[in-house]
Amino acid sequence: MTLLNKTLPEERRGKLKHMLAQGQLVRAIEAHNGLSGIIADNARIEGQDADGNQVVREFDAIWESSLTDSASKGHPDIEVISFDSRLHTIHEILAVTKKPMIVDGDTGGDPNMFEYTVSKLERAGVSAVIIEDKVFPKRNSLEAGTTQTLQEPQAFAYKIKRGKAVQMTDDFMIIARLESLIAGLGLDDALDRARAYLEAGADGIMIHSKSKDPSEILEFAKRYQSLLAELEMDKPLVCVPTTYNNIVEEELKQSGFHIVIYANHLLRTAYKSMLETARTILLNQRSFEADPMCAPLRDIFDAVGFLDVKEKDRLDESNKNTPVIIPAAG
Amino acid sequence: MTLLNKTLPEERRGKLKHMLAQGQLVRAIEAHNGLSGIIADNARIEGQDADGNQVVREFDAIWESSLTDSASKGHPDIEVISFDSRLHTIHEILAVTKKPMIVDGDTGGDPNMFEYTVSKLERAGVSAVIIEDKVFPKRNSLEAGTTQTLQEPQAFAYKIKRGKAVQMTDDFMIIARLESLIAGLGLDDALDRARAYLEAGADGIMIHSKSKDPSEILEFAKRYQSLLAELEMDKPLVCVPTTYNNIVEEELKQSGFHIVIYANHLLRTAYKSMLETARTILLNQRSFEADPMCAPLRDIFDAVGFLDVKEKDRLDESNKNTPVIIPAAG
Amino acid sequence: MTLLNKTLPEERRGKLKHMLAQGQLVRAIEAHNGLSGIIADNARIEGQDADGNQVVREFDAIWESSLTDSASKGHPDIEVISFDSRLHTIHEILAVTKKPMIVDGDTGGDPNMFEYTVSKLERAGVSAVIIEDKVFPKRNSLEAGTTQTLQEPQAFAYKIKRGKAVQMTDDFMIIARLESLIAGLGLDDALDRARAYLEAGADGIMIHSKSKDPSEILEFAKRYQSLLAELEMDKPLVCVPTTYNNIVEEELKQSGFHIVIYANHLLRTAYKSMLETARTILLNQRSFEADPMCAPLRDIFDAVGFLDVKEKDRLDESNKNTPVIIPAAG
Amino acid sequence: MTLLNKTLPEERRGKLKHMLAQGQLVRAIEAHNGLSGIIADNARIEGQDADGNQVVREFDAIWESSLTDSASKGHPDIEVISFDSRLHTIHEILAVTKKPMIVDGDTGGDPNMFEYTVSKLERAGVSAVIIEDKVFPKRNSLEAGTTQTLQEPQAFAYKIKRGKAVQMTDDFMIIARLESLIAGLGLDDALDRARAYLEAGADGIMIHSKSKDPSEILEFAKRYQSLLAELEMDKPLVCVPTTYNNIVEEELKQSGFHIVIYANHLLRTAYKSMLETARTILLNQRSFEADPMCAPLRDIFDAVGFLDVKEKDRLDESNKNTPVIIPAAG
Repeated sequence: MTLLNKTLPEERRGKLKHMLAQGQLVRAIEAHNGLSGIIADNARIEGQDADGNQVVREFDAIWESSLTDSASKGHPDIEVISFDSRLHTIHEILAVTKKPMIVDGDTGGDPNMFEYTVSKLERAGVSAVIIEDKVFPKRNSLEAGTTQTLQEPQAFAYKIKRGKAVQMTDDFMIIARLESLIAGLGLDDALDRARAYLEAGADGIMIHSKSKDPSEILEFAKRYQSLLAELEMDKPLVCVPTTYNNIVEEELKQSGFHIVIYANHLLRTAYKSMLETARTILLNQRSFEADPMCAPLRDIFDAVGFLDVKEKDRLDESNKNTPVIIPAAG
Repeated sequence: MTLLNKTLPEERRGKLKHMLAQGQLVRAIEAHNGLSGIIADNARIEGQDADGNQVVREFDAIWESSLTDSASKGHPDIEVISFDSRLHTIHEILAVTKKPMIVDGDTGGDPNMFEYTVSKLERAGVSAVIIEDKVFPKRNSLEAGTTQTLQEPQAFAYKIKRGKAVQMTDDFMIIARLESLIAGLGLDDALDRARAYLEAGADGIMIHSKSKDPSEILEFAKRYQSLLAELEMDKPLVCVPTTYNNIVEEELKQSGFHIVIYANHLLRTAYKSMLETARTILLNQRSFEADPMCAPLRDIFDAVGFLDVKEKDRLDESNKNTPVIIPAAG
Repeated sequence: MTLLNKTLPEERRGKLKHMLAQGQLVRAIEAHNGLSGIIADNARIEGQDADGNQVVREFDAIWESSLTDSASKGHPDIEVISFDSRLHTIHEILAVTKKPMIVDGDTGGDPNMFEYTVSKLERAGVSAVIIEDKVFPKRNSLEAGTTQTLQEPQAFAYKIKRGKAVQMTDDFMIIARLESLIAGLGLDDALDRARAYLEAGADGIMIHSKSKDPSEILEFAKRYQSLLAELEMDKPLVCVPTTYNNIVEEELKQSGFHIVIYANHLLRTAYKSMLETARTILLNQRSFEADPMCAPLRDIFDAVGFLDVKEKDRLDESNKNTPVIIPAAG
Repeated sequence: MTLLNKTLPEERRGKLKHMLAQGQLVRAIEAHNGLSGIIADNARIEGQDADGNQVVREFDAIWESSLTDSASKGHPDIEVISFDSRLHTIHEILAVTKKPMIVDGDTGGDPNMFEYTVSKLERAGVSAVIIEDKVFPKRNSLEAGTTQTLQEPQAFAYKIKRGKAVQMTDDFMIIARLESLIAGLGLDDALDRARAYLEAGADGIMIHSKSKDPSEILEFAKRYQSLLAELEMDKPLVCVPTTYNNIVEEELKQSGFHIVIYANHLLRTAYKSMLETARTILLNQRSFEADPMCAPLRDIFDAVGFLDVKEKDRLDESNKNTPVIIPAAG
């Protein structure tokens, strides 16, 4: 499977902008390593909907998340897993997938660091980076009671401007993530920041919230439309419905959102199932009872291309791992 | 949690030999990244057994698997994920765990490469490496119909000898993995190879099988006892009950096994649950229905130390991410 | 300097083929890390030649060498520094340079590994990979008395064919390196192999020699012309004049070579000067006497972009590393 | 050579403290990759001094420098080469050297990041980390006119305290680097900071200066003695005589310094010689004239262990890279 997934940076990079241009709601799911990237690439449902129409659904994009990349490596989401390590994971995922990737860029560091980030991601074929307006090193937004420190809006806008200036293609996007609601600063602050960041050149806005109720982000979306109209701009709006998970995609689309990110679910389900499987083995002192919770090895062999290798080995008559030794004069 | 897990190489390295010396059956489970390593470290059941005795069970060791490390990175198990990449993962796991680690060393490469492998693993604090007697680059053993090429026993024995010669402590173990049953060569071949490898200095033997029935490995274990008696040695025997998963640990112990490795279950369960969660989200066009399949973020925050960070941030009065700017003369 | 060097993979990849198409002799020099890559990119002489003509000369391409990448990491050139580690260095160099890169692909591993190699290099923006027809793990070719084992020509040709089949663009080249002369097998063997590899799809041939006298490679070049004529092909010829260093580029070009690689000189000069500087400091017990052997820090600051950062910091009025702390409701 | 250099973390970690306890002046030199680490390990002079005494001198320790590690990777010294990347280099150097290592820890990040840094370095076998009291992301200290922002002393002292609390052995040292003189804040500020950091648990102090005249650091050393006496402490003092390079080690020792770091000379000499060699080749259109500026390949083969491999290959009768293929039932 995986070598079939090979895609050039120049083929992949513009895919996100292309989807947005077509008015499509972009559905992204988190990946934190090559295998979860393959799932983001391959997961698919087919069937008939209530009206008997044939439906096929896939994810449109891969979200390379700071939280899940850090947690996958056993570390907290505090920028201690630094960009060098993140880029390593990003290359790993890009090597085995085809879909466009949106990268969670944390704070982006200082403007000089952010220039390097933009340059390296764009070359790799990433489609967008989202940076959040917190002070380095940030704290994850979703744990109640965590101290959050926002950056002064003009300093953050300046960082966006610096990033846009080093970008080489029209394909790449820099999206500004607003932490006003996370920090309890309210909608007005969020709108002011959105304005400042858009004016600085941001290609879109992500509004973050940890409320269980989507009303505040829906209200933001409404006011964001007015802001865009006033600015005579057309820039996509992004949401991450981790806590307000009742609302369906169609409703988000109708409310003015263009990208929906399922930001941490693959890691969270992996963690839950790994823990349960581990405990089931401990309980039974064998893996028999845990096996139904595990994919057959063959499914994984298929997903990562081992069955392809097996087939190629079989076709390969001339390459039997048998070197003919030819004595060297040296 | 994670910084509490800090352990020095010199503290960890000898733990496996120590457990074996105490006559304990060592129960190892696969890990392929920091987070699955934390699960291998932390998973635990407590309760009463049938006789009303209080029971606590944990895993004793971490198995850093070539199959799952490769698959986690989206690659097949054919040594294309090379030792440099494996070592990267090994360091990642060691940074957040306390339990002893056994590394799946694939073929070990050629003797010169294997010297580097032994040296780097021993320094990192790994307790054992298991290498298999196939020709580089190997193919995974568990897929039927895959071409398998074994190495000539004396060449493999020589590689073991070279590895033992560069080892610096008594703590580290080099265990030889027999692929005779996988390759259809039978028990006699396996026993001949076991003899050659033990005589070359191997610290233990792993007998691999992809049969659903444990009888061939139980027969091997019986004849291995005789071999040890004849050689006047006492070297542990390892099994990997992936396919013959009916047999319980106690029975394996009674049959002469000292280490049982659950070699791929955390990755397999992660893959299965990730795929199901992805499809559940696609089906419902929101994550609400998938959420029960996902661990609460808080559990992951706890596991990777984010709650510790939050607490330390709170205690930290003097460190508010607020630099006092002191103008520099430059 | 470095961020000015940003170049997209799609811009860089085809540069080598373009130069060759123009009939230019391509002059490549080895790099083993970002800084030596910057030198390969920037080194330049200007002046008047004997006839009073204004001359400007630069290197045309970067050779990412297995020998020097391995040695830079303190390891011997025996493929113990594996492709994962090499790719890490390749990304490092590509991040700060503009010129096309030719990668020393060692043996290329087995055909399945080589597919991954080709796919990853092409995506990164590399222009060519050169693989040599030895058995894995190879030994460096330039040390007398080293055991060399060549691969059976058809097996190697098959590997080339597999590599060509996964290539995605017309820009990328797979060049076959002949070790016949290194192994003492003579010109006829080299020519037979060249034919087999070209017929398998190789985009060029490199003929290697450790003779101090260029006559054998010149003779090869002459017969290679005939071979090309016979095959009705036009494929470039590459040489590495490490030992036969008397011959000048113009003569090599006249003799039919298209690419000349200075394959290890930057590392060798770095090693020599580092050792001398270290000893000069030891001798004098201060660095005063060694300083003339060292570049001023400012030159390095310039080369790696620190002076740019300093200038941007100065222009940056709004970004004083001064977060305005906005109390979070949490 | 390199595999002979294998050293366990527990053997190496305490070497620096041991040298200091013996009253020895510790002479450290910068390394930025495996090969420069080998030079730091191996460089040695022998001879007779003016009085006819036999003298042998080596470096005592390796300085893993942020400036040179970053520059080697083609990046400016602004913490854009993050700790993950630095740790990668550190492991590379540790794999092929025996001498104790002192790591340039930049600012150390925030206290939570610094805990991870301490934990990872100590496990790796590093002997000391030096962190400087600037605000993240720092700017290199040696370029005139660069904006420097110091951290508030109590915040920095708190970071030291956090680092000391996670340390596991007595062997590891956390040394505080004073940037007061770099920032133009004078000796009193430096002394006040030294006091605060020592009281917080720092194991030593490094005083940095970019003056060409050592008088300010000598004056600091004198007042540091008084401070130690007042605090009833005995903690080593470190200097980096890059700019004031006239003063010899003996004089620094007499003035109260315990560690002298030659902080960037191997990279600076490598850069200078690489550039000259590149230009010499361009000038002559062959490498003949540049060869005297380059070490013979054989010297490098020796340094990185290739000659050992060659010798082992020769001794190895049973391992001819010749797999015996045993047909698998599969």
